[in-house]
Amino acid sequence: MKELGHGADVNNIASIYNIDPKNIIDFSSNINPNVIPNLDKYVIEGLKECRSYPDISYMNLRKNISEYINVNKDFIIPGNGATEIIYLLMKSINKRLAILNPTFSEYKRAAILNNLEVIDLQLNKENNFEVNIELIKENIDSFDSLFICNPNNPNGKVKYLQELLNVIKQNNKLLIVDETFMEFVENEEDYSLIKYINQYENLFIIKAVTKFFGLPGLRLGYAVTSNKNLIEKIYNYKEPWTINSFADNLSNYIFKDSEYIKTSKNYYVKERSYMIKALKGINNLKVYDTDTNFILLELTNKKSKQLKDELLKDKNILIRDASNFIGLDERFIRVAIKSHEENEILIKQMKVALGD
Amino acid sequence: MKELGHGADVNNIASIYNIDPKNIIDFSSNINPNVIPNLDKYVIEGLKECRSYPDISYMNLRKNISEYINVNKDFIIPGNGATEIIYLLMKSINKRLAILNPTFSEYKRAAILNNLEVIDLQLNKENNFEVNIELIKENIDSFDSLFICNPNNPNGKVKYLQELLNVIKQNNKLLIVDETFMEFVENEEDYSLIKYINQYENLFIIKAVTKFFGLPGLRLGYAVTSNKNLIEKIYNYKEPWTINSFADNLSNYIFKDSEYIKTSKNYYVKERSYMIKALKGINNLKVYDTDTNFILLELTNKKSKQLKDELLKDKNILIRDASNFIGLDERFIRVAIKSHEENEILIKQMKVALGD
Repeated sequence: MKELGHGADVNNIASIYNIDPKNIIDFSSNINPNVIPNLDKYVIEGLKECRSYPDISYMNLRKNISEYINVNKDFIIPGNGATEIIYLLMKSINKRLAILNPTFSEYKRAAILNNLEVIDLQLNKENNFEVNIELIKENIDSFDSLFICNPNNPNGKVKYLQELLNVIKQNNKLLIVDETFMEFVENEEDYSLIKYINQYENLFIIKAVTKFFGLPGLRLGYAVTSNKNLIEKIYNYKEPWTINSFADNLSNYIFKDSEYIKTSKNYYVKERSYMIKALKGINNLKVYDTDTNFILLELTNKKSKQLKDELLKDKNILIRDASNFIGLDERFIRVAIKSHEENEILIKQMKVALGD
Repeated sequence: MKELGHGADVNNIASIYNIDPKNIIDFSSNINPNVIPNLDKYVIEGLKECRSYPDISYMNLRKNISEYINVNKDFIIPGNGATEIIYLLMKSINKRLAILNPTFSEYKRAAILNNLEVIDLQLNKENNFEVNIELIKENIDSFDSLFICNPNNPNGKVKYLQELLNVIKQNNKLLIVDETFMEFVENEEDYSLIKYINQYENLFIIKAVTKFFGLPGLRLGYAVTSNKNLIEKIYNYKEPWTINSFADNLSNYIFKDSEYIKTSKNYYVKERSYMIKALKGINNLKVYDTDTNFILLELTNKKSKQLKDELLKDKNILIRDASNFIGLDERFIRVAIKSHEENEILIKQMKVALGD
């Protein structure tokens, strides 16, 4: 089987490179290394729930999310990861979708599979891929909906979007914001658009448990919107029971663990600062500034594929070759911010590989 | 929220009827009451896997299923329950789909949501809803694919389908068989079409862990077909990571637990016989013969809605009002075969409610 071009393809890559997947340090997927306490206990409780079907209307799950983000539970649509939400949304919106690139490839894949017309807007490398509101204004008549990842994957920068939200509203368009990585941002509350959900019906936000709570295998994401028309369309397409009982049950605990949430946030403020500084100390490497838990890097003396191969074969380190993002090229890689010990290993080996 | 017309809607119904869901004995969903040993241990192991993304190509999961049903792993497509498989299939087949009714309503819902033309073929109450091959032959030019549930939900009868498979093949059509309940059947190997998978490319079988392994909250089903064209189409539409890490990990154990499998099969042979006999002893009730873990019943002196209300309000027993199946009417109910103790309670209370 060929490589799939996503991060998080460890087993497949391990088999291609003939490495035991257990030995790989995976910097290609952006997962919080901190662990929620007492998960074992919760999971045994979840197992009991597994003996019956999950509640088809996920009332308890929606209530837990509702309390976590302080939004009416009827404005929350739970999904099998953010992925289910993205695919349902693409079935439910109008034909012309603008996407700000470079960004996560599943938006476009889901849009095309659902016969949407995709308008690829391109952010500027020279401007560090910063969200360009002028570019959006210039193209406003070309789309019905605009998809933004904030902070953006792969470059990790967050952006104030209040002005954009108003522009989009004034033009009767829909703003879709993937805030999957928002919880990693310092002063999250300043940047997250969740607080505008009641007021703006033209806003659709995607969030997930995957990254910040460090549980990608659990498969739990959710949509937040007060747009009743869109909610109805999505439920029309939604398949029953897509969220498993472990996820349903764990929602009773993880969202309420304020200690875990605080510790993780503090960890990322500190570790981000360490990583950026350390990476900037490496020759032949351009470091893009980040507000989240991964970092975009540009190589000046080597191709990304080559560095990936070297780090994997010699050091069991898996980085994300980011050359397949629209608008990036064969010089780009992305690395996650993992535990401090793992980050140190990465820094050390990158120094060796890039010729310091 | 209104009742959803499926079984397995316990929490919602409990809230409508103002009953603690924990007190309800749920005969509306068809789940094996026997429990696989050591699940706690497996689930703690699965939790560790949850810290990374599931393998996007589910190699290990497909290998485990492959060994369980003795089919090439490349012919297996794992899904988030049988439901994901049904919805993917509807995106991937030709326009005209015949469905044998009465049967599980999600087939038709999924077909219509994907703009298929549904041809509803009707099985005959007078013939105990037995699969009618003549009816299919008469209508063979009206469809591209035929969907059969075997044994069928809601009536529970299994049918030899070899002859039908040949008829369908000779006419260049696709036969889709939902074998979700096949493992409950005595002499399963005589009835299951799995053994024809290599030989017949016009065959598509749906199976799941949900019912027989008693884990509906786990969300694990799978498709089996040697039709490479169909496999390719389905993967084209398939969303990534739809199966959670607990399900992926549990596949290492549940399919290999031959003791659990044997004990469950024996239990159902015995308990089915007891239940049918006991129900036949109740007045004002027609019992349809079954080969699986649920029984279709027809009331002669009461409407199904009324009996459902009475059993729920007075006795905390939830039965499936089967009046919304196409071709059934307000006299039909369906009950699961549960533990012997629970079955005895049902029999006793049905006797009271139906006026013995």
